[in-house]
Amino acid sequence: MRRPQGYLFSAVEAGIRYKGRPDLGLIFSQTPAFWAGVFTRNDFKAAPVLLGLKRRGEVSRVRAILVNSGCANACTGPEGLQDAETLLRDLAGLLRISPEEILPASTGVIGLRLPVPRIRKVLPDLVAGLSPDHAPLVARAMMTTDTFPKMVSRELEIRGRRFTLLGLAKGAGMIAPQMATMLAFILTDALIPPAELAPALREATEGSFNRITVDGDTSTNDTVYLLANGQAGELPSEAWSTFREALSEVARELALLIVRDGEGASKLVKVVVREARSAEEAELLARAVAHSPLVKTAFFGEDPNWGRLLAALGKLGLGLSLEKISIFINGIPLVERGRGMPEEKVRKEMHRAEFTVEVRLGLGQASSEVFTCDLTYDYIKINAAYRT
Amino acid sequence: MRRPQGYLFSAVEAGIRYKGRPDLGLIFSQTPAFWAGVFTRNDFKAAPVLLGLKRRGEVSRVRAILVNSGCANACTGPEGLQDAETLLRDLAGLLRISPEEILPASTGVIGLRLPVPRIRKVLPDLVAGLSPDHAPLVARAMMTTDTFPKMVSRELEIRGRRFTLLGLAKGAGMIAPQMATMLAFILTDALIPPAELAPALREATEGSFNRITVDGDTSTNDTVYLLANGQAGELPSEAWSTFREALSEVARELALLIVRDGEGASKLVKVVVREARSAEEAELLARAVAHSPLVKTAFFGEDPNWGRLLAALGKLGLGLSLEKISIFINGIPLVERGRGMPEEKVRKEMHRAEFTVEVRLGLGQASSEVFTCDLTYDYIKINAAYRT
Repeated sequence: MRRPQGYLFSAVEAGIRYKGRPDLGLIFSQTPAFWAGVFTRNDFKAAPVLLGLKRRGEVSRVRAILVNSGCANACTGPEGLQDAETLLRDLAGLLRISPEEILPASTGVIGLRLPVPRIRKVLPDLVAGLSPDHAPLVARAMMTTDTFPKMVSRELEIRGRRFTLLGLAKGAGMIAPQMATMLAFILTDALIPPAELAPALREATEGSFNRITVDGDTSTNDTVYLLANGQAGELPSEAWSTFREALSEVARELALLIVRDGEGASKLVKVVVREARSAEEAELLARAVAHSPLVKTAFFGEDPNWGRLLAALGKLGLGLSLEKISIFINGIPLVERGRGMPEEKVRKEMHRAEFTVEVRLGLGQASSEVFTCDLTYDYIKINAAYRT
Repeated sequence: MRRPQGYLFSAVEAGIRYKGRPDLGLIFSQTPAFWAGVFTRNDFKAAPVLLGLKRRGEVSRVRAILVNSGCANACTGPEGLQDAETLLRDLAGLLRISPEEILPASTGVIGLRLPVPRIRKVLPDLVAGLSPDHAPLVARAMMTTDTFPKMVSRELEIRGRRFTLLGLAKGAGMIAPQMATMLAFILTDALIPPAELAPALREATEGSFNRITVDGDTSTNDTVYLLANGQAGELPSEAWSTFREALSEVARELALLIVRDGEGASKLVKVVVREARSAEEAELLARAVAHSPLVKTAFFGEDPNWGRLLAALGKLGLGLSLEKISIFINGIPLVERGRGMPEEKVRKEMHRAEFTVEVRLGLGQASSEVFTCDLTYDYIKINAAYRT
């Protein structure tokens, strides 16, 4: 996997919650990086989110991201904020930078305090382990119920210069917009002015992390950070749109990895609603389908139960016309103008690990898409016993 | 169980979908009954719902309810409407009444046509079996994934006269307001003018069937019928409020039976949100908690995971203040002003088959409550394989 210049990575086992695997990660930029961040809209923002929001108002350039799994440091009050600040201060001392130059991110159980002494003890090891090769370790240290680490990279060649993007993410549970519930860090070695970064990240988020759902629950800790350290030189302004496209691709791939690894998920399903009267209507309907537990269990059962699809579309009471609605799975008709079609060919498509449900409403020109997964026994297993 | 005067019941096995149990039921009033009905708000209303809505505009008195399980007769187009009308016409002939005096109700798989010839064949047996004693058979014939039949009765004594209410319901899946997804028929022998019936039923529905959720999916077939045949005489107008109260109690008990028998459910949970700024806000938050798959799996795991409760409350972005929020389970504090309390005593309460989660927001005076159940392996089992 290509890596952007000037970034070092490290991860150690701090024993926060998991045993025998790294749970504390550090990303360090050798030079100050312009940055942008988007955060959860949950009322109860975790301490690292509050600090991230504070940084956004304070500093245009940062040097590092400190991330831990196992403990969300959410709903921990002023003490939780202090815990995070203590760690950032310690780490800043070791890195010889200011604490404001470090972005914090946590994921894991809500309501637990961070085991600060234990984490402090391993900070020197964390710093000592920094290496350009250790990005996969950080991707692993971010994992909670994730079953695999998530990394994506892209390379741009512009006027003979090479610019690289690298994205790391964790997801699995409490995955819903807005904004999709997860951590993601995207690093680039391009020099991009901060005024460009924030809108580019918002755009990328809208088409990716905000279009996925596992269970409709929005966490207290969702965070996406984008860092641009300029080590590969200035990105010519005519290449900004190329960069934005690449950024959106990286975000989208990470988002799909998150859904594919949704808690207990065995299938990745794209729900596309077309021919709506407005993009908002299309999105509401796509989300209604993507959130429906009955639809999601039917996906798991590989049952082309179009009655449930229609019921999910109809339940919002938007005034749809049944006789105008057609539904396709991987392009094969399941409902044509309100009537069920023979199901055998469609059922075969549902045996696949990925498929698309396309709904045509016959009402207008607008469309929207959402990515979801199936609802399985393992979702229950993972979540009934998560803390025990 | 007390039964209202002048109602006969019958059920037979029509082999619509299930084997070895009744799946076609009939309720017959010996005299015309004033009636009221409330129906699903799903855009795609099943044929029996469309006919019920039509009746509501046409006739103030009816004689019978015909109900079947196994096939919802939903999304079946003009043919589905014709199927229902054919059956009602046949049945009307056998009962020597007009088809408009029969209210239809169906529940089961969406998108299937009714096996009309098979049902026609057993209609004479259905009529021949009418008896005041067979109400339990009808409650059984309505069942789909329900594990037990649902009946509730109440008796009022007013000025030496006895008035009786009897309610029958089926629920289990696709249970969500508005209006809660199920069939329920409430019969009384009181004579109540139709102008009183409709608002009384709306009021009763609001506090019962509209306050429950199993999976947040609203079906195409939800129907509540209320019949009042006057066989026990006229209800004095000063007793209307007593009647309304009894009606609300019957509806509420039926609603609770439905949640208790929610698909795969092992626990009935009442979610009460108090101290909200408005009833709407309280209701939105109660529903957010009651719908959250992560909260519901934690109920199943008997895990007092208050972080998930807070995350569910916060995800709407209503501007709540964490430090004002307290949460109790069966009165025992789990969160006090945003801080987690020792969990052991609370965990014990969660071992019960029923418990109450009370959220105090500290923002105002308004409150709302919703009934929900846990999300279990059996929900997945039932719904992944429902049609196969």
